[in-house]
Amino acid sequence: MRKLDAEQLRDVARGAAILGTGGGGDPYLGTLAALRALEEYGPPTVIDPQELADDALIAMPVMVGAPVPLIEKFSFGPELETVFHALERFLDGRLTAVMSPEMGGTNSVVPIALGARLGLPVVDADAMGRAYPEIDLVTMTLFGIPASPFALADEHGNHIVISGVDNRWVERIARATVVEFGAICPGMGFPMTGKQVREAAVLGTLTYAEDIGRAIREAHEAKTDAIKEILRITNGFALFEGKIVDVQRRTMHGWSVGEAVMDGIGEFADSKMTVSFQNENLVAFRDDQVVAAVPDLITIIDSDSGEAVTTERLRYGFRVVVLGMPCDEKWRTPAGVALGGPGHFRYDFEYVPIEELNSAAERAGSAA
Amino acid sequence: MRKLDAEQLRDVARGAAILGTGGGGDPYLGTLAALRALEEYGPPTVIDPQELADDALIAMPVMVGAPVPLIEKFSFGPELETVFHALERFLDGRLTAVMSPEMGGTNSVVPIALGARLGLPVVDADAMGRAYPEIDLVTMTLFGIPASPFALADEHGNHIVISGVDNRWVERIARATVVEFGAICPGMGFPMTGKQVREAAVLGTLTYAEDIGRAIREAHEAKTDAIKEILRITNGFALFEGKIVDVQRRTMHGWSVGEAVMDGIGEFADSKMTVSFQNENLVAFRDDQVVAAVPDLITIIDSDSGEAVTTERLRYGFRVVVLGMPCDEKWRTPAGVALGGPGHFRYDFEYVPIEELNSAAERAGSAA
Repeated sequence: MRKLDAEQLRDVARGAAILGTGGGGDPYLGTLAALRALEEYGPPTVIDPQELADDALIAMPVMVGAPVPLIEKFSFGPELETVFHALERFLDGRLTAVMSPEMGGTNSVVPIALGARLGLPVVDADAMGRAYPEIDLVTMTLFGIPASPFALADEHGNHIVISGVDNRWVERIARATVVEFGAICPGMGFPMTGKQVREAAVLGTLTYAEDIGRAIREAHEAKTDAIKEILRITNGFALFEGKIVDVQRRTMHGWSVGEAVMDGIGEFADSKMTVSFQNENLVAFRDDQVVAAVPDLITIIDSDSGEAVTTERLRYGFRVVVLGMPCDEKWRTPAGVALGGPGHFRYDFEYVPIEELNSAAERAGSAA
Repeated sequence: MRKLDAEQLRDVARGAAILGTGGGGDPYLGTLAALRALEEYGPPTVIDPQELADDALIAMPVMVGAPVPLIEKFSFGPELETVFHALERFLDGRLTAVMSPEMGGTNSVVPIALGARLGLPVVDADAMGRAYPEIDLVTMTLFGIPASPFALADEHGNHIVISGVDNRWVERIARATVVEFGAICPGMGFPMTGKQVREAAVLGTLTYAEDIGRAIREAHEAKTDAIKEILRITNGFALFEGKIVDVQRRTMHGWSVGEAVMDGIGEFADSKMTVSFQNENLVAFRDDQVVAAVPDLITIIDSDSGEAVTTERLRYGFRVVVLGMPCDEKWRTPAGVALGGPGHFRYDFEYVPIEELNSAAERAGSAA
């Protein structure tokens, strides 16, 4: 167990923005909420999964919905505690820790804010090692851990508790309610034991995000190349450098869905890139060739600020670098690819790991 | 307390179809389910509200949604027990009786089927004295009794429990889930005490429905005029006699919404009638004049069979009689009219009691 200070918290948020693949909500807002909770309740505690008792009871708080309204609607108030208590009322024991379902954007810091408020430790792990737009797209589903009971709450004090026959049904039912709750609201579910966390979660990702965030901060301070640091830590690829020339975006079924088109510059001057997204970036096409696809990570970085750009903030004219990073091995099993791969999002191509799509030789070829 | 035999059960269903104002779902299907439960578990017990202990715990099971899919989707199986147990888990005590929220169509017999299954008495009362298409449109709302916790279940085993800040929010949240659950599903909520039932419910309506149903049956057996009997018992009015020449119907937000247009015959030969509905009949216009409106009851009777026609079964060519009947006094208070009157359904005219709209003189005038 260790305490997280304000600087470390900001590092986590900065790193999680990279792992958030454009989704999970604007990390800036979540960070503000977490910093406020830290100031009010003291520094949150991070617990290593190995320190959890086998029968410890852990659940995952999460903002569900389209990130766009999050900018106007800041759901980190009492509704976060409402959703916690609504869930706990449904459980046989008391929750002993909270964990992030996704190490991305707002959702990487939501459990930190809640943990600080309630004096509960935050597990150094998540359920994706990235961000995904649907509740059932977590490694728990691969290990048969139910999302139910799953609670949702809104800022008026309304809340519901869902018991779904499988995690896909929880997603369907929750999505219908989220739209009624104003397109985004806090949820909490996936009650599981410490033993299950160690088996099913992606371990150490809070520290992983913090490492990435610290490297970016230090590069900024030293005026060195932050992107090179990110690629080194994540074993990633610089897929493209260019300027955004078109963004299509609509809110559909409670998601922010669309694509961004970029004209290349520098090494990629003769190329075009299209990144399609559903809250998170899903597929990167360079000159109509897939160069990265879910479950691998695709993140768009603002060349000026060196910070990750979430899908709801993509704008015409931004100069960007597109990064691709390998996902956790749990997503590369047949079950993992079936759950979180291109087919789930109705693409008709097979998943190929990013390392195979972007060998050194190919990259040289594309730049020729 | 008394037992209900099969014939009495059929009388209740037949009478409730009259009070159902075209809604509440086809009573035939509910009756089949109730008769099956009666055969399997023995006759259900009806309890007079005066016999309830002050602190008895009562809740109301109900089919929520558009009645159209009920014809294809028969939700009286285990999901009715699922919804009961999902709700009870949320309560501090055990439920001692069930009660119908609406004395109309399927929903008048749903509690009877469930009561028989679980060995719980059914209270001789309801929450409307008619049928209404929205969860919050009950006399409990007028008396400040919350609908929450309110459970919903589907045939797959999914269920949710809603805690809304008011009954309108429960309606909104439930409606979103019902659509996801296939447009109709069982719900259960409004936990209340015996004392609250006596104060807030419309009392004696199960017996009232049974009286109407028995009178219709006996009139059929004696080949006398069943409609005259209905009007005598309900203090109602024969608003129109005619043939359906047009039916507009669509399923919208989980409701069956539309209108039926009739050309007059006999006494009404020179007149037209339009009845608009949202699951239930809302307003009857005769030659563009309002002759009955919610909260008063409007029921369309098939002239051939003498049975009530639910809105989802209205068809071109049916010969019908349109009846209007006064509602319970609880609906005629300013709060009652505001909750369940024309304004709630976006009509811009004031509610006038049916007895004033249809004085003997006016009826003579319209037939002239």
